[in-house]
Amino acid sequence: MSAAVLQRLAALLPPGRLLERPEHLAAYESDGLTAFRTHPLAVAVPATTDEVIALVRFCQAERLPFVARGSGTSLSGGSLPVAGGIVIALNRLTRILRLDPAQRLAVVEPGVINLDVTLAAAPYGLHFAPDPSSQSICTIGGNVAFNSGGAHCLKYGMTSNHVLGIKAVLATGEVVEWGGPSRENLGPDWCGLFTGNEGLFGIALEITLQLLPRAECFHTVLAGYRTLEQAGDAVSAIIASGLLPGAIEIMDALALEAAVAAVHADYPAGAEVVLIVELEGPREVVAADRARLDAILAASGPIETRPARDATERAAIWKGRKSAFSAVGRLSPDFLVQDGVVPRRHLGEALARIRDMAIAAGIRCANVFHAGDGNLHPLILYNGRESGALERAEKLAGSILKMCVEMGGSITGEHGVGVEKRDYLPAMFTPDEIDCMARLRAAFDPLGIANPGKMFPTSEAPALQQHGLHPLEKAGLISRE
Amino acid sequence: MSAAVLQRLAALLPPGRLLERPEHLAAYESDGLTAFRTHPLAVAVPATTDEVIALVRFCQAERLPFVARGSGTSLSGGSLPVAGGIVIALNRLTRILRLDPAQRLAVVEPGVINLDVTLAAAPYGLHFAPDPSSQSICTIGGNVAFNSGGAHCLKYGMTSNHVLGIKAVLATGEVVEWGGPSRENLGPDWCGLFTGNEGLFGIALEITLQLLPRAECFHTVLAGYRTLEQAGDAVSAIIASGLLPGAIEIMDALALEAAVAAVHADYPAGAEVVLIVELEGPREVVAADRARLDAILAASGPIETRPARDATERAAIWKGRKSAFSAVGRLSPDFLVQDGVVPRRHLGEALARIRDMAIAAGIRCANVFHAGDGNLHPLILYNGRESGALERAEKLAGSILKMCVEMGGSITGEHGVGVEKRDYLPAMFTPDEIDCMARLRAAFDPLGIANPGKMFPTSEAPALQQHGLHPLEKAGLISRE
Repeated sequence: MSAAVLQRLAALLPPGRLLERPEHLAAYESDGLTAFRTHPLAVAVPATTDEVIALVRFCQAERLPFVARGSGTSLSGGSLPVAGGIVIALNRLTRILRLDPAQRLAVVEPGVINLDVTLAAAPYGLHFAPDPSSQSICTIGGNVAFNSGGAHCLKYGMTSNHVLGIKAVLATGEVVEWGGPSRENLGPDWCGLFTGNEGLFGIALEITLQLLPRAECFHTVLAGYRTLEQAGDAVSAIIASGLLPGAIEIMDALALEAAVAAVHADYPAGAEVVLIVELEGPREVVAADRARLDAILAASGPIETRPARDATERAAIWKGRKSAFSAVGRLSPDFLVQDGVVPRRHLGEALARIRDMAIAAGIRCANVFHAGDGNLHPLILYNGRESGALERAEKLAGSILKMCVEMGGSITGEHGVGVEKRDYLPAMFTPDEIDCMARLRAAFDPLGIANPGKMFPTSEAPALQQHGLHPLEKAGLISRE
Repeated sequence: MSAAVLQRLAALLPPGRLLERPEHLAAYESDGLTAFRTHPLAVAVPATTDEVIALVRFCQAERLPFVARGSGTSLSGGSLPVAGGIVIALNRLTRILRLDPAQRLAVVEPGVINLDVTLAAAPYGLHFAPDPSSQSICTIGGNVAFNSGGAHCLKYGMTSNHVLGIKAVLATGEVVEWGGPSRENLGPDWCGLFTGNEGLFGIALEITLQLLPRAECFHTVLAGYRTLEQAGDAVSAIIASGLLPGAIEIMDALALEAAVAAVHADYPAGAEVVLIVELEGPREVVAADRARLDAILAASGPIETRPARDATERAAIWKGRKSAFSAVGRLSPDFLVQDGVVPRRHLGEALARIRDMAIAAGIRCANVFHAGDGNLHPLILYNGRESGALERAEKLAGSILKMCVEMGGSITGEHGVGVEKRDYLPAMFTPDEIDCMARLRAAFDPLGIANPGKMFPTSEAPALQQHGLHPLEKAGLISRE
């Protein structure tokens, strides 16, 4: 890339908003998947959607790869820069353009923080339902790109269930607007297609979000068990009863240890595993459901059950749960967060097999997960300074994902494919399916300049190569420290 | 098309399942949009998904256009044959392959009748939520192709909200399987993209449907009003109150007259318009909601409100509503069913303008519609034997759709674009948007053999032409009687 091109790129923005100095770029070298680092050529920091459009059109004309980035919390390397490309940082696009309580929707820019939508909607008794653990820092643009989930997605669905409309600039430079306030739309779900694109189709500029009324009443209960199997069986019994809690979460011993160390969480003595169940809804319904839940839990052999008696106790339960991910960092210098899905009925078996695999590999593995969805999050601990440790951790992660697929599940529930899992895609999809996906991607991005090297296995993108792309060489795009 | 090709086509099926004789083809010349007729070359009647795959691969190899067809109830000409092409009739693929009450899902073939899914699920207290008025005859394959709605989609969403997975043969002959029992899927919503494709991407072979528990309790009330405005205001007041009924429907005077004539429906004397509201949910919630609804209706100035006192009275209310479409046939030799959407807040204004436009055109127009969704269904009456009558009716239909778009609505809520509305597409989408949609279509069907001439304006399909298609000449594909 010549200095002249970078100069023309800088001219698209006000002074000082194209970062090129190594000390400025350092912050963008990695994302939540810290095992990978790449040096971008430059980082563009637009403050308006027009600037974003101009940047994408420039990239299209120059065949310059770009990676859109919000807070960089992707756990699959989805916002990792690509070598020789630029990062388009969207953190200045933080306006809530419209908040319409009557229509129960918000129109936001991609850099708006997830939790800020709920805070803005709270005075009207509304909230934005998807609640990733990172909700206090992650952006709506990233939630849309990765179709993020969260603890309460058991009841309310993923991000895509809450996105009504998207205005986006495609990698071709075209600006499109799909969906809208009414769900009665025309033809295929073009808006749903854009959600979960992992940055490979273009950049969302304005997102119309559905807001839901905050539940009238919550009932949150924490139950301690001696074994994972007991907790798993309790989950099966709850689901089989027909109850649909807002959330059903499980934390194992190592995750509990981390939460205690980090936020002084308090759990029942002797509990090797903790189950969190939250009911929500109209007061009468929660009262009736609570009676059923109490009976199920009582029969499931807990050491102790602790219902939250007020909002403070409820907040404390969730603080422990939501801090668990980062808290595991206190137990180990490095860890891999895994994200696999198994059909709910296989939950107990899956947990037992993960435990056995971890013991056999001599690796510590913490489990914190959305049990109601069958969405597992094993945290695999390792020491990156120890030779071969990352490779052994990755091998265990691979075995866990293989198990998920064999059980009829998925290699990712909510973290996305990104860099981390692209080579697993053929384990879930046939060559015809991957080829069709790549053709769809090419309809948005014929040059393959939007977040290249992500989601698709690089050796298996025939449609991309067919459209005149240079073969994406893994080694060239990503450098591992 | 040479006789030799048809002979090879016939050889793909057991004897007698390629219909070629004019008297057999006659039944397939039209669909629910009776104003159009086309003669297909032949009709193939496969009985297995393998036969469907073989037929599509044959069409692909021979560049032979095909139209998949269920019960032919499309109201937009979506299943109208194309000249020189074949019809693939899916009525023999009627197996419910799996019904899993524990996972609350059914896996069905595309020819299964909508209502049969609910009947099969009923013993387990479950049902399939989307309920088009034609639910006793229309097929799941058609519901998927057109993302069908129905009266109860106000609360539960359209077909796409209830399709968990799709196995399909694409127009390329590739077989893909997307989605599945878990909602935690990977990447974009490929399955949602296929839903609503109007037969332009390929043919669904197996569809995994979500089943919902039947509501514990219903409360259905019918209210008669003197004016459309009063009924429209009542709808606004219900929605503004935060109530979310299962359905909110409106029928105007002409629709009431038709329902009385057809099924001896009984409506309050002097009512020019009838509002139907149905609450559903747990008993305690319905009781609480009912009190609120009663107060709102009492304040809305009705002539009379009639709550259904039992299941028989509830069924009678719905029988009148669901028969209204076909019943209008008793009032007029021909009619066009329109399907437009306006933002709910414009409902009253939209109805007044439709009435004024109909009066100015000297055309009778009945209104039966999903008021809660803002989804209008004006039925425009005409006599096809009267010279110029169809054209005048279409002109009025066009004016109504134009109004919908101007108000920020849509040219179709649930009937699809098909043949009828393809020329209106540019009124809703920019050239860039249509071009991108056409490129996505080409990713599934590069030759343009799957239901060609539908959905996209024929003069505006640059991406299709770019992929080597013959320009689709409107006159050549469709002949108007």
